[in-house]
Amino acid sequence: MAKISSPTETERCIESLTAVFQKHAGRDGNNSKLSKAKFLILMNTELGAFTKNQKDPGVLDHLMKKLDLDSDGQLDFQEFLNLIGGLAIACHDSFIKSTSSQK
Amino acid sequence: MAKISSPTETERCIESLTAVFQKHAGRDGNNSKLSKAKFLILMNTELGAFTKNQKDPGVLDHLMKKLDLDSDGQLDFQEFLNLIGGLAIACHDSFIKSTSSQK
Repeated sequence: MAKISSPTETERCIESLTAVFQKHAGRDGNNSKLSKAKFLILMNTELGAFTKNQKDPGVLDHLMKKLDLDSDGQLDFQEFLNLIGGLAIACHDSFIKSTSSQK
Repeated sequence: MAKISSPTETERCIESLTAVFQKHAGRDGNNSKLSKAKFLILMNTELGAFTKNQKDPGVLDHLMKKLDLDSDGQLDFQEFLNLIGGLAIACHDSFIKSTSSQK
């Protein structure tokens, strides 16, 4: 029987990002999206380091509008991934800056 | 002094995805990209569950071409994130199908 290896850290992260969306979006029939209220809860509970660092109180409203590409007032999984991607790029850019300035 | 809370699972995953790209892309001066060879190593070591499941031996070549939007023969961090996003969407879709079929 083929040996089933345990998931790598990267595979675990992909599953975890899917699960956190599911946890917050919940399921209304076949429709799995984040309402504005659920988005705000997710931002405060799962991404507090980013959220608490924002000086502008309107930043989450602005972010929701920017992410909600089809303007249906909700975020589907692709729109949620764009949020994660944006935060990862910010994290990556600050890593590049910090290692370049050490030279 | 403000209490620094430990990162959440989602924040840790964002850092981890950034770190795995850095680990494999390495740094040639200010340029942090995945060559084809490094992409193949990453796919086999970090995403083995996906890679070992592919019947078509040419799937990684095809995937690299599809991801390499600017056709420079390398993947930058945004192009790498598109890979992660694609795999997350596949994971999400299979989750939705599996929970719908349980009804």
